Amino acid sequence: MDLQKIAWFIKRQKVAFICSIDDGGFPNVKAMLRPRKTDGLKHFYFSTNTSSMRVGQYLKKPNACIYFYHKGLIKYTGVMLKGKMEVLTDQNTKDMLWRKGDTVFYKGGVTDPDYCVLKFTAENGRLYCDLKTENFSID
Amino acid sequence: MDLQKIAWFIKRQKVAFICSIDDGGFPNVKAMLRPRKTDGLKHFYFSTNTSSMRVGQYLKKPNACIYFYHKGLIKYTGVMLKGKMEVLTDQNTKDMLWRKGDTVFYKGGVTDPDYCVLKFTAENGRLYCDLKTENFSID
Repeated sequence: MDLQKIAWFIKRQKVAFICSIDDGGFPNVKAMLRPRKTDGLKHFYFSTNTSSMRVGQYLKKPNACIYFYHKGLIKYTGVMLKGKMEVLTDQNTKDMLWRKGDTVFYKGGVTDPDYCVLKFTAENGRLYCDLKTENFSID
Repeated sequence: MDLQKIAWFIKRQKVAFICSIDDGGFPNVKAMLRPRKTDGLKHFYFSTNTSSMRVGQYLKKPNACIYFYHKGLIKYTGVMLKGKMEVLTDQNTKDMLWRKGDTVFYKGGVTDPDYCVLKFTAENGRLYCDLKTENFSID
């Protein structure tokens, strides 16, 4: 599968799994809504709560991976991207990702200090498809 | 949600997400078929290839988490369990987990050296349900 097809696969998924490492040195994972904005396979932007546990972990240790997954009737496809996660709180970025209805999660609106953006930058990836695994790098 | 209900939730999921930490200090995650055997919320057994990347990672660093997830129409539920992953290659354990049809994955049958068992032992967990998060410990 070429990189463009992998990017297409990711665009079709509704859920992303984001991984971090906690203070105790354990991997952590959680499901999130799919990224609100993507730039090929290189950059992925998620909106989240500044006060969340994952934000605290990424501020201490930016090593991350994100994962997209689809289970068909008999086969499954999974794409893992590894890289760094940044926590962005500048208003331009927050404005860019904001959507009507987000006040359900962030009462203070687009300037709510508890609303921030996670920006993931991928370095390399691993694809599982049709019982085969392949690694790829992302420039 | 009490621990028994969480165990029930996990039993209903068809897929588990297992996380490890690689040599570079990055979290890794992959989807796997649900555990073949469980013991409450404490122990979870998966079958896998001895030669797989994750087995190599767990042999070096057993810190792990496993995650179960369900997305309903409007809400989602996620359970993360953190603990240690062991790689078991003794024949008794391999016999216990073996199922007819596994020769598709392990040509040599139940004694195939490339067939092994991952045993996860949970220490604590985190539940996300109805926009709320709660931590719990597992004795």
